[in-house]
Amino acid sequence: MVKGFIKSLGVSSLLFLSSVAPVFAEVTKTESESGGGHGATAVVFLFLAILLIASKIGGIVEKAGQPAVIGEIAAGIFLSFLAFSGLGIMDDIRHSETMAFIAEFGAVILLFQIGLETNIKKMTKVGVSALLVAIIGVVLPFVLGSFVFAPLLFPESSFPARLFIGASLVATSVGITAYVFREMKVIKEKFAQVVLGAAVIDDVLGLLVLAVITALASGEAVSPEFVAILSAKAFGFLAAAVILGNVFAKTLSKGFSMIHTGTGMKITLALTFALVYAYGATLVGLAPIVGAFAAGLVLDAVHFKGFAFPEVVHDLLSFRGFDKKEKAKIEALVEKHKDTHIEELISTLGLLFVPIFFVFTGLQIEFASLLNPGLYVSAAILTVVAFLTKAFAGVAASGSVKEKILVGVSMVPRGEVGLIFAAVGKSIGAINDELFSVIIIVVIATTFVAPPLLKNLLKDYKVK
Amino acid sequence: MVKGFIKSLGVSSLLFLSSVAPVFAEVTKTESESGGGHGATAVVFLFLAILLIASKIGGIVEKAGQPAVIGEIAAGIFLSFLAFSGLGIMDDIRHSETMAFIAEFGAVILLFQIGLETNIKKMTKVGVSALLVAIIGVVLPFVLGSFVFAPLLFPESSFPARLFIGASLVATSVGITAYVFREMKVIKEKFAQVVLGAAVIDDVLGLLVLAVITALASGEAVSPEFVAILSAKAFGFLAAAVILGNVFAKTLSKGFSMIHTGTGMKITLALTFALVYAYGATLVGLAPIVGAFAAGLVLDAVHFKGFAFPEVVHDLLSFRGFDKKEKAKIEALVEKHKDTHIEELISTLGLLFVPIFFVFTGLQIEFASLLNPGLYVSAAILTVVAFLTKAFAGVAASGSVKEKILVGVSMVPRGEVGLIFAAVGKSIGAINDELFSVIIIVVIATTFVAPPLLKNLLKDYKVK
Repeated sequence: MVKGFIKSLGVSSLLFLSSVAPVFAEVTKTESESGGGHGATAVVFLFLAILLIASKIGGIVEKAGQPAVIGEIAAGIFLSFLAFSGLGIMDDIRHSETMAFIAEFGAVILLFQIGLETNIKKMTKVGVSALLVAIIGVVLPFVLGSFVFAPLLFPESSFPARLFIGASLVATSVGITAYVFREMKVIKEKFAQVVLGAAVIDDVLGLLVLAVITALASGEAVSPEFVAILSAKAFGFLAAAVILGNVFAKTLSKGFSMIHTGTGMKITLALTFALVYAYGATLVGLAPIVGAFAAGLVLDAVHFKGFAFPEVVHDLLSFRGFDKKEKAKIEALVEKHKDTHIEELISTLGLLFVPIFFVFTGLQIEFASLLNPGLYVSAAILTVVAFLTKAFAGVAASGSVKEKILVGVSMVPRGEVGLIFAAVGKSIGAINDELFSVIIIVVIATTFVAPPLLKNLLKDYKVK
Repeated sequence: MVKGFIKSLGVSSLLFLSSVAPVFAEVTKTESESGGGHGATAVVFLFLAILLIASKIGGIVEKAGQPAVIGEIAAGIFLSFLAFSGLGIMDDIRHSETMAFIAEFGAVILLFQIGLETNIKKMTKVGVSALLVAIIGVVLPFVLGSFVFAPLLFPESSFPARLFIGASLVATSVGITAYVFREMKVIKEKFAQVVLGAAVIDDVLGLLVLAVITALASGEAVSPEFVAILSAKAFGFLAAAVILGNVFAKTLSKGFSMIHTGTGMKITLALTFALVYAYGATLVGLAPIVGAFAAGLVLDAVHFKGFAFPEVVHDLLSFRGFDKKEKAKIEALVEKHKDTHIEELISTLGLLFVPIFFVFTGLQIEFASLLNPGLYVSAAILTVVAFLTKAFAGVAASGSVKEKILVGVSMVPRGEVGLIFAAVGKSIGAINDELFSVIIIVVIATTFVAPPLLKNLLKDYKVK
């Protein structure tokens, strides 16, 4: 497997990385030895540069018709391999708090973009379908994982450990699936809306499960009231975010457009909105990405009408070499389309920070955990369970059999959410290193298997 | 003074901030109490949102014809005032390592942009002029500060403390001056190139001074060899960066354009280049911003010829509502200008992150230090010294008297570099809280005085 994707990265890039590796090692040594005034934060510039370049080297899998996200995660695993080979700087990147924030910022941008592209009215139309898909997709893997396969595969595991195994199979990584949808330009299709709706509900349900089993594993008393309050907070947040947001965003953007129309205002407002929602979500125990998604849903309806001229055109016009006539033409064209959408403004941020998120996720995998052959049997069985249970949830989707299969397969990738579950389980001592590795392998497998499968299914879908 | 700029922020924004302050306090409390899985990094989303909004509220001074940077620093001082008033979250922002990195990232983007806009050939032409301005502007304030005014104003200060006072008057904050130049669109003028050249040399000289006096204050033996090696490293870095970069950047960008032409590649390469240079600078004891500036100088010559279509136009074309004819027109226009510059691609990042840098710099000022009236007398005298010594350095510039004055005044703001010096002095125990406050007041005063003065001078310059 390792050899496989090293090959897929291309010989030239491998040579490039191998040849700079000793330099990096030397560099880090010098850095920590000098301990100068600028050292502490300055090395993060290097971290950022490494992840940026790694993401673009990984992205060459697009040339082979694969989604870039696979290459980006593979690049992350390759960095993890370098860490495993003794390249200390990769380990430093993995544990850098600042890089963790930047990666999560990338995830927030991604979900914000997806929210912007999601039509809330369309989503309400697919609501019942999405709800059913989500519930089946949560209950089935959790029950089968925790109470059937975990006891079977790991007879000596504790009860909380089994709960964590089941729980880590619960939440679909909406990010990875949506990324493939965006690449294939099908995100506005009905089945895609069902999947996104289901993935959001399923994230909410999954985080509820996580909160409950974390409390259980920590020895807390889990009363029905506890579960009820947690649920009310989570669903209340999403409803309140969308309702309040619809009122607040319009007033706010109107107010700001009156006091200041300078460049950067529009993108700043949009980003601030997403960040506040991302933070708000954590206050009710939800992931920041759920808040960012909600922010995108709200702003989808708000076009910042007070702003006269999109920054992107301002940039275009500052290109060298346009003559006055050409400028006038472009300005006239744009004037007709004043009321443009903010998602274009966010795209530059997305181009830089979203790939960092995927590389960083790949890097979070301890390479050593992938080398124990005994674990792969259990992992393979659990992967099949993880795949089939989510794929089966597709039956609840409306539409043709093909669409049911599409929805089911789209729900398969667990990605970063599964990794978060495993990390929480490990940090509170509920699961040991062995189980942690198994969960990680399952998460990777579902994430690697789904996108190419999805891409093939989508080819048929388009031909239809 | 405080009242002054609170007023300048506008009553509405003040009311806005006061009304949300208790909410923030509540929010932070909840956060630290819950201590949940997402808490640690999630609160930084809120920090980022606060700085973004503060920067835009501060930016309204533009309406009054003042450079935005003043409003942004004032907004930062206002946040510092809120911290002083007991709003804990502002103190958390001030000490957040991640925010410090993001702010420094903003400074790196700014200097990278300035480097991109700086024509290296023009700068070589003004080289002698810039060198003379820099040397006078370093020697004069350092000697007068350390050996005349420090002993006079603070007779009980130690020798290292006096050296730090002088040193903190040395380095011009090229960022603030260049920001004003960019706003006034004079950055490509000859006098602006002299100032930028001088500011870079003077940053290099300043950082040499800092390295030497830090070694002295720490009791290290400072031999002539030590100074020589340090100097050789610093100047060697700049020369090597530009020479090697000119060879390397072309090959690299050509190579990458062959394996991957997807969106985001160009901006990623440019940013990675800047980040690697920023980090590289720290390895020879220079500030990251000096490296970013050098990266900008190098890439100015490289237009990434392998890339067919700028991302910004890709974004423009994805606007909703353009019909096919309109799209074709824009594409045809752009096709003629394929070989466009990367500085446009960096601008979105600049719009978001550069203002954060200035707000964060303002927030670094302990508000309490501004309330001791006794310090203002010494600070006022030192400010006059700081102003006159730099203004006098302008005589070395070529050109008319007006241009000499322009160059001199442009060199006045000390900004973040002065703050870094003060912080280093304090951290190694060379200066006490009293002297630290004085230096900070002087730095603020030079930073506040120069931009409006410069703007007025530039008005005349344009009329000429």
